[in-house]
Amino acid sequence: MELNIQRWIDQLRAGDVRTLARAISMVENRGPGWSELLKGLFPHSGKARVLGLTGPPGAGKSTLVDQLARFYRKENRTVGIIAVDPTSPYTGGAILGDRIRMQEHFSDPGIYIRSMATRGSLGGLARTTADVTTVLDASGRDLIMIETVGVGQDEVDIVRLAEVTILILVPGMGDDVQTIKAGIMEIADIFVINKSDRDGAENVEREIRTLQSLAIRSDGWTPPIVKTVASEGTGIAELADAVSKYEMYLKEKNLALNKSVENWQKRLSEMLRDALLEKARGQITDGNLARYAAEVAEHKRDPYTLVEEIAANAGKS
Amino acid sequence: MELNIQRWIDQLRAGDVRTLARAISMVENRGPGWSELLKGLFPHSGKARVLGLTGPPGAGKSTLVDQLARFYRKENRTVGIIAVDPTSPYTGGAILGDRIRMQEHFSDPGIYIRSMATRGSLGGLARTTADVTTVLDASGRDLIMIETVGVGQDEVDIVRLAEVTILILVPGMGDDVQTIKAGIMEIADIFVINKSDRDGAENVEREIRTLQSLAIRSDGWTPPIVKTVASEGTGIAELADAVSKYEMYLKEKNLALNKSVENWQKRLSEMLRDALLEKARGQITDGNLARYAAEVAEHKRDPYTLVEEIAANAGKS
Repeated sequence: MELNIQRWIDQLRAGDVRTLARAISMVENRGPGWSELLKGLFPHSGKARVLGLTGPPGAGKSTLVDQLARFYRKENRTVGIIAVDPTSPYTGGAILGDRIRMQEHFSDPGIYIRSMATRGSLGGLARTTADVTTVLDASGRDLIMIETVGVGQDEVDIVRLAEVTILILVPGMGDDVQTIKAGIMEIADIFVINKSDRDGAENVEREIRTLQSLAIRSDGWTPPIVKTVASEGTGIAELADAVSKYEMYLKEKNLALNKSVENWQKRLSEMLRDALLEKARGQITDGNLARYAAEVAEHKRDPYTLVEEIAANAGKS
Repeated sequence: MELNIQRWIDQLRAGDVRTLARAISMVENRGPGWSELLKGLFPHSGKARVLGLTGPPGAGKSTLVDQLARFYRKENRTVGIIAVDPTSPYTGGAILGDRIRMQEHFSDPGIYIRSMATRGSLGGLARTTADVTTVLDASGRDLIMIETVGVGQDEVDIVRLAEVTILILVPGMGDDVQTIKAGIMEIADIFVINKSDRDGAENVEREIRTLQSLAIRSDGWTPPIVKTVASEGTGIAELADAVSKYEMYLKEKNLALNKSVENWQKRLSEMLRDALLEKARGQITDGNLARYAAEVAEHKRDPYTLVEEIAANAGKS
């Protein structure tokens, strides 16, 4: 197994796309050897720039990501795209739209698109995405874009992996737009108003400005607002420019490492939790878990005491 | 402490709203005694009906929940509402809109509204929501509605607690509507097309029917589609009727307990994971975690091996 993994790593670093795809699947599915593979790849990671893009449904994220990818390809940078779809807890694999996207870029090996759906894994989507990012990073991609639908806690966790987080909004989002923006204000490094040729773009901009005046970021950065019409390619160069400026700001102020350390504190905690769960799982058979669940569901047993007891015994054997 | 907790439980069960509010805060913040409190309350829970309502931003969830609450109050049932806002990882407490809602219902002690935001707790929002539901349930509320913004994995986890899950859609949601619906199809027991007086309501209905024809539920239930205009109170009685019908179906087919057992299998796993994390936390000081994170961020250390080592030592002391 060891030798095999080393060959995978070599092929992956040599740019073999088929190995890349297989490696990502292995990591995603926690197939045998996934942990060894990541251990072997980690030292080769850390060179790629990672952008996170999120926003509500209908904001045109995929189109924007595609346009950005084209832009960076013209600068001869290789691109990896991770399209995360947390809305699909049951369906594994790529959704139709992503398959079509993949085919479009098929002729350019400089763009690699990977679609990910939640698989109900206890490891969590954010963690799997982080691991897949490590694989893409180690494979030598210059730039990785993580694209995620929605703006829930999951998405916040996912885009937090990125050095630069881009929040995509659109005019006319309805009553809840205030809520979304207030929640995600703190993590958006750059705001995009996409479909900005529509009515209401000025309203969205004004609302962002108002919210910005209420909350000052601890790093002193004022997130710029970039207007785009992604379907026509308008504003894409400006967005790429905003990304560069923020990256320079991070570098000048020595903030990049801090951000990474903070992320790793969180990730290490989560990884530890997962490792411990696996350990505990070894102590409770599926049959026992089902029996316990039935007892609790019938209110014959209090779950809080039960869990305390199992945890107290964990690791003793 | 023991005695104090018992007094809380007594007061809470006697219907004291102030104690209810304090108990929820204790559970939400994991304040001293939270675990004892839940242990004491659990035997008194299990009587309330729990409805979960979710949908994309702008779908009019709050208005719909308010109208449903009014409807059930006319039937003399007491209502508890948990408004979950996973979009706000940093802001604790209620958002403005919810405060206004709470004031509106202030004169009726039969409606209790609680707003919850993610607090970045490692325990996770779904688990905290489940615990708050237990508190409300034990306090004697007849009906609990869990309302959540968005349709990410978080929301799926949250609404899964409910016996009946209602997915609220609106006409004209844009390109991603297909994605949302495909993902959440499996968990929606009832579809609502709100703002159904708008253009495009028929389109949404057709899309739901198409998706339904593709995926047959394992429990044999065909989720009905209810059209509402929540702001005018239209369709609310029909929605309540659909809820009753599904509850009767669950009862007839003996499915309610199965659903509950499945939920508890998942919840027990999660609770166990959290308990183990706490245990592990005791073994890594914050200082150590920060140091490890710095080493990983600087690529001096591989996180995968590190976590394995810590997990292997956990529980040995």
